[in-house]
Amino acid sequence: MNRHIAELAGPTLASRITKDSIVVIPTGAIEHHGPHLPLVTDVLLAEAVGSAAVERAAEEGLEVWQLPTLAYTKSDEHSWALGTVWLDAETVFRTVVEVGRAVELMGAGTLVFVNGHGGNVALLQVALREIRKRFGLKTFLMPSLAPAAPPAGEGLDEHGLGIHGGAAETSLVLHLRPDLVDLSLAERWVPEHLADFGLIGFNGRPVSFGWLSNDFGTPGVVGDPTQATAEYGRVLWEASVEQAVASLREISRFEHARARVAAGPLPA
Amino acid sequence: MNRHIAELAGPTLASRITKDSIVVIPTGAIEHHGPHLPLVTDVLLAEAVGSAAVERAAEEGLEVWQLPTLAYTKSDEHSWALGTVWLDAETVFRTVVEVGRAVELMGAGTLVFVNGHGGNVALLQVALREIRKRFGLKTFLMPSLAPAAPPAGEGLDEHGLGIHGGAAETSLVLHLRPDLVDLSLAERWVPEHLADFGLIGFNGRPVSFGWLSNDFGTPGVVGDPTQATAEYGRVLWEASVEQAVASLREISRFEHARARVAAGPLPA
Amino acid sequence: MNRHIAELAGPTLASRITKDSIVVIPTGAIEHHGPHLPLVTDVLLAEAVGSAAVERAAEEGLEVWQLPTLAYTKSDEHSWALGTVWLDAETVFRTVVEVGRAVELMGAGTLVFVNGHGGNVALLQVALREIRKRFGLKTFLMPSLAPAAPPAGEGLDEHGLGIHGGAAETSLVLHLRPDLVDLSLAERWVPEHLADFGLIGFNGRPVSFGWLSNDFGTPGVVGDPTQATAEYGRVLWEASVEQAVASLREISRFEHARARVAAGPLPA
Amino acid sequence: MNRHIAELAGPTLASRITKDSIVVIPTGAIEHHGPHLPLVTDVLLAEAVGSAAVERAAEEGLEVWQLPTLAYTKSDEHSWALGTVWLDAETVFRTVVEVGRAVELMGAGTLVFVNGHGGNVALLQVALREIRKRFGLKTFLMPSLAPAAPPAGEGLDEHGLGIHGGAAETSLVLHLRPDLVDLSLAERWVPEHLADFGLIGFNGRPVSFGWLSNDFGTPGVVGDPTQATAEYGRVLWEASVEQAVASLREISRFEHARARVAAGPLPA
Amino acid sequence: MNRHIAELAGPTLASRITKDSIVVIPTGAIEHHGPHLPLVTDVLLAEAVGSAAVERAAEEGLEVWQLPTLAYTKSDEHSWALGTVWLDAETVFRTVVEVGRAVELMGAGTLVFVNGHGGNVALLQVALREIRKRFGLKTFLMPSLAPAAPPAGEGLDEHGLGIHGGAAETSLVLHLRPDLVDLSLAERWVPEHLADFGLIGFNGRPVSFGWLSNDFGTPGVVGDPTQATAEYGRVLWEASVEQAVASLREISRFEHARARVAAGPLPA
Amino acid sequence: MNRHIAELAGPTLASRITKDSIVVIPTGAIEHHGPHLPLVTDVLLAEAVGSAAVERAAEEGLEVWQLPTLAYTKSDEHSWALGTVWLDAETVFRTVVEVGRAVELMGAGTLVFVNGHGGNVALLQVALREIRKRFGLKTFLMPSLAPAAPPAGEGLDEHGLGIHGGAAETSLVLHLRPDLVDLSLAERWVPEHLADFGLIGFNGRPVSFGWLSNDFGTPGVVGDPTQATAEYGRVLWEASVEQAVASLREISRFEHARARVAAGPLPA
Repeated sequence: MNRHIAELAGPTLASRITKDSIVVIPTGAIEHHGPHLPLVTDVLLAEAVGSAAVERAAEEGLEVWQLPTLAYTKSDEHSWALGTVWLDAETVFRTVVEVGRAVELMGAGTLVFVNGHGGNVALLQVALREIRKRFGLKTFLMPSLAPAAPPAGEGLDEHGLGIHGGAAETSLVLHLRPDLVDLSLAERWVPEHLADFGLIGFNGRPVSFGWLSNDFGTPGVVGDPTQATAEYGRVLWEASVEQAVASLREISRFEHARARVAAGPLPA
Repeated sequence: MNRHIAELAGPTLASRITKDSIVVIPTGAIEHHGPHLPLVTDVLLAEAVGSAAVERAAEEGLEVWQLPTLAYTKSDEHSWALGTVWLDAETVFRTVVEVGRAVELMGAGTLVFVNGHGGNVALLQVALREIRKRFGLKTFLMPSLAPAAPPAGEGLDEHGLGIHGGAAETSLVLHLRPDLVDLSLAERWVPEHLADFGLIGFNGRPVSFGWLSNDFGTPGVVGDPTQATAEYGRVLWEASVEQAVASLREISRFEHARARVAAGPLPA
Repeated sequence: MNRHIAELAGPTLASRITKDSIVVIPTGAIEHHGPHLPLVTDVLLAEAVGSAAVERAAEEGLEVWQLPTLAYTKSDEHSWALGTVWLDAETVFRTVVEVGRAVELMGAGTLVFVNGHGGNVALLQVALREIRKRFGLKTFLMPSLAPAAPPAGEGLDEHGLGIHGGAAETSLVLHLRPDLVDLSLAERWVPEHLADFGLIGFNGRPVSFGWLSNDFGTPGVVGDPTQATAEYGRVLWEASVEQAVASLREISRFEHARARVAAGPLPA
Repeated sequence: MNRHIAELAGPTLASRITKDSIVVIPTGAIEHHGPHLPLVTDVLLAEAVGSAAVERAAEEGLEVWQLPTLAYTKSDEHSWALGTVWLDAETVFRTVVEVGRAVELMGAGTLVFVNGHGGNVALLQVALREIRKRFGLKTFLMPSLAPAAPPAGEGLDEHGLGIHGGAAETSLVLHLRPDLVDLSLAERWVPEHLADFGLIGFNGRPVSFGWLSNDFGTPGVVGDPTQATAEYGRVLWEASVEQAVASLREISRFEHARARVAAGPLPA
Repeated sequence: MNRHIAELAGPTLASRITKDSIVVIPTGAIEHHGPHLPLVTDVLLAEAVGSAAVERAAEEGLEVWQLPTLAYTKSDEHSWALGTVWLDAETVFRTVVEVGRAVELMGAGTLVFVNGHGGNVALLQVALREIRKRFGLKTFLMPSLAPAAPPAGEGLDEHGLGIHGGAAETSLVLHLRPDLVDLSLAERWVPEHLADFGLIGFNGRPVSFGWLSNDFGTPGVVGDPTQATAEYGRVLWEASVEQAVASLREISRFEHARARVAAGPLPA
Repeated sequence: MNRHIAELAGPTLASRITKDSIVVIPTGAIEHHGPHLPLVTDVLLAEAVGSAAVERAAEEGLEVWQLPTLAYTKSDEHSWALGTVWLDAETVFRTVVEVGRAVELMGAGTLVFVNGHGGNVALLQVALREIRKRFGLKTFLMPSLAPAAPPAGEGLDEHGLGIHGGAAETSLVLHLRPDLVDLSLAERWVPEHLADFGLIGFNGRPVSFGWLSNDFGTPGVVGDPTQATAEYGRVLWEASVEQAVASLREISRFEHARARVAAGPLPA
């Protein structure tokens, strides 16, 4: 069954979309990814993973649907670089909140962003609450890319700092669209000195910091694309799609409160 | 040569994009088009015509390039209908102006919207001036759909009122994606009484009027899709792509002032 | 009867304004019109035509009323020129939408902008829909100036490019306020090369373009005021008022849907 | 000499407007003033006083000029009443700041609002600073109405609470446009109990309070129009124009700092 | 009883806050006050006077409560000076209106700003009406500082121009926090020439003017802090707290309309 | 030395604040924390930890300074609950960005938010980048509360779900302000079913979700305050201040790029 909402006629939705329906929107970016990767990298990954996950989840019987990808998003950390098409934070926020408004009106109960661009995460988290509060939807944000160990025999030496145009993203594009990668231009740009900080860091560290992609003394790449391989891309692809499907499974049974149907009072 | 900017690496643009470059962005809509056409109709037409025109124009030697389509736009006249994903006027305006900002920074001199949704026209016209004023780009707006007479033997009886989901749009989708059309659900919904007005009207009349698509006592369709045929779609397709290419030709030689190079004073 | 709403006491409106009432607001501009015409030109024409049309229409029995003119509007294409007082697009949009809010609350059913400044057209068209959607009013936009052939014996050689400070506007001000015109300073500034474009153009062409009034290599005039005469002004005045009255007649009987009163279902 | 800037051709300003020029803009309101006064009252008074003051001041040799009146302003305290056309605070603020931008660009050094509507005062005071800060203009706000004692033999018993539609405003309209007043509908609506408060009050009291015009248990009038006379109107008119002219005289010699020309250091 | 709302548990409010409750919020500023006073001066005074007044008023049995102070406000007239932390007018407006929204939801009927910074007055006056209109609260604005004559034997020679960092503010900080004052750096900066203007002036004059604190040819001080004494500070403190308490007494019995309980019609 | 910037005179900053200065602003919230904790909880913790950390860090020789706390922030997830004073996301964003603007102008090079309210985290992360981009500051966000194991003999059974009003926050307030805690009203409200989800979760999980604090079928508490003890509060206090000081140490030596001083090219 076609799970692309946009390819249906509007009146058809009345019989297809219900409060149990989960609407997935990939969010990418058109932004600088170094000399070896295309500007469309984040769109490509978000859309590929999102579509594959929706397809597999639908085959499993989940009530998942897909809307067109948001290609232009909040890429202000790369605005210094040729080719980045960034929108202001407020513009992206308005866009996703207004999309949420329409998703509620089409009858769905859940909205999921499958996001390929790290620079969108914090803003989309703000939007998750805003959309829930204003329109009552359940809202979720998941990354398009899941972590995975490289294949046996391959090492990975990025100190956990391969966050933009590094081994993982490059491998995935090699897997999906090798024609868009020019590995001959890939260079290692790992800000290794950041590993000296125990509290400050990109993710999962207690102290966040503001950065632009040209802050690191690198050409806007943070990671080591020279370690990328199509085989690692395949591994990452499988891990990413599988995590996305697993996430949709959890989402489909997620309730904020313990139980809608449970009798009796909540425990003290 | 690949004319999709997003599929290039950012640094590559330095040697490809110049002030003579013309950047084309299709603008569509995800909105109700009646029971017989998909929500994606306007996106489909804008993207298909835009891409085909860029390809042909590039083959002719024009410096044309393409950026990803804006799918979600100003569809507030259909917001009452299931499946329409509309953004507020201000959100769309911010988006296109900020895209213009990025296009100027990537070095291009001209920005062209190939627009598939009539509800965007006035707002994009406002944006043409704003982008020109703020970023100095030459800016243009062209429709994806050009008028064409039906093939010999076919009549067309819409009184010029087939503006949304009517014979033309339906024929074009029949030509491009017949799997997305269900002609069995098509019905004639022509607000014929509007033809009684000599001054008030949709286009080219001196008096404009505000309307929502459910104002007309119809199910959100204005036109007669029952007159659609794949053959008329083919005719329209050729006319539309040809007009788009011809427009790009004119754009490529367009100067606001008489001459950059002419010596001497302007005539009095 | 006094049709100036602002000259009535508020409580009086309860017995005068009904859903059948048509409220007319002239919209002008304070902007550069060349060395021969006053900044107030567009205000003058919109207000004169609007008032005369309301008066004549009222005499015919139409339920028309007038509100004070908006003098400062969206003149950003002339902001480079001394004396232009332009507002940002958003400011004008907010203003007219909020005026629409008040018109709905005073009980009227229809709001009409009689507009003297071409730079307002696209923005006001966006507002027509917004006001209709938010406040339920019927909304219309008409130009203050109607086209007319020059009197016998006079030619007109502007190639259809006399859009700002040209023969028509100058003639009308000569007719209405000759003390404000200095024809000795009038010069011909027709960007004749624009006539070479078949698709790109100011009005009624398929391809719109963004422009500022100093783009054309002229001193902010587009047209040939040297061809202006008071006699042509008189002809234009009559044509303009007549078209405005005729438009009000159509507006007074305009229904979006076929019929409020018609029995039976809409046709399939 | 014509002091209406809008009636001049733009290029003329280059030789007329200098940093010493004082630009006056009347600001009124279209709002409920009770059953006896027209909606246009505040526009009428601001424009009449402003114009008369400009004319007299110009005759004295002051470099004063006038721009068209802002009719629609911040009348939200009367928005409950038929006929009030109010704009939001932000809309009015944007408008006057953007007008200030244009006044600076036309070369003037000073901008003066002659204001007929009390509900604008606080917002315009915020704007005075904003315009000074952003555009460097000297900015002033003066009321159109000056206080004056009634003629001998007439008493005034409003407890200083005649702030809207009371004796003063009604008398002035009787003086200027008696055809717009219907004294037979005037009633006394003085919230006398407010005089019991020593600290809270409308003007000049240390404690301000928020109010809407229907808060007072009256029909939106605060004052006693039954005490209005044309003769008192004449007295007020002279006092108001004289105060406005005297204010323009002070403005024309006003310097924030002690002296531009004084030699030597500022005193400690 | 603790009158600091923020120190209560939320559910407790249900039994404490009613429509008769008066919520007081001090509003200060972090801004330049010359070389002799701390940036926190206005916060210090607003919070000290506000707290003392709430305490005394509560002891008298008034239903007064306090919320945390707004420290950062509209100090744009001092933004040129090191250490000023100013917010834009719109940001402050949004903040206080949204605080008003929450105060209404917690069940109170009255909101009072005790304001220590003159630059906030006009904006807060706009907000008083906005909050009343949107949320129905009674709203008030009072200054933290009341005027008082200096003690016997002390003169005051500021010509009424001691509005920022002058004798009064300096004396009060000397009284409350002498450790934060360095009188050895205090200098007299009185723009005495302003006293020559009879109509233009800071307060209570008919003509307002826009100013920045560096307009006066002084180092951002307007007044004569060399005349400050701790004893005058004590006098001002008592006067200020007493006026604030007296204001709260009036506020607690204030009704816009004559009487909620009075029988019979309002007088004509 | 006094590290409270607001207690200094503005001109003093010229000799104290340099690009090496680190400015710390605590950010709290006035929001519902259940029946046992005060609304001020997050302000209390952010301010106490922030102040203690600044003091200790200054004693160590770090160039740290403190600005007044932002008490009202983004608490929209608790807006349903009495006493919550929440600001809209845009208002908080504007506020912190404008504070950043002032911090840059006072000469500092680094801005640090010590944040006591989880609901601010994503929005402040967006602001970190915005402030860095617009004003060039280094920007950081750290939590006021650090994790710590309970003292020996105490267990903790919150499944990692004690995020609002649970054992940790309650213990800390018991340690700092026991007079503001009423443990007799504390109840366990742990949404244990959320522990069943492996991918969806509050922190550190790949899938974020939107929630309001009344979504969980609990009274706005998420955690088990009955497990709180003053002794655990003491442990948490030490851990939190220590982590904050350690964070400031890292911040004081943090460079985005490898080295300002290093000679030679960056490695390829």
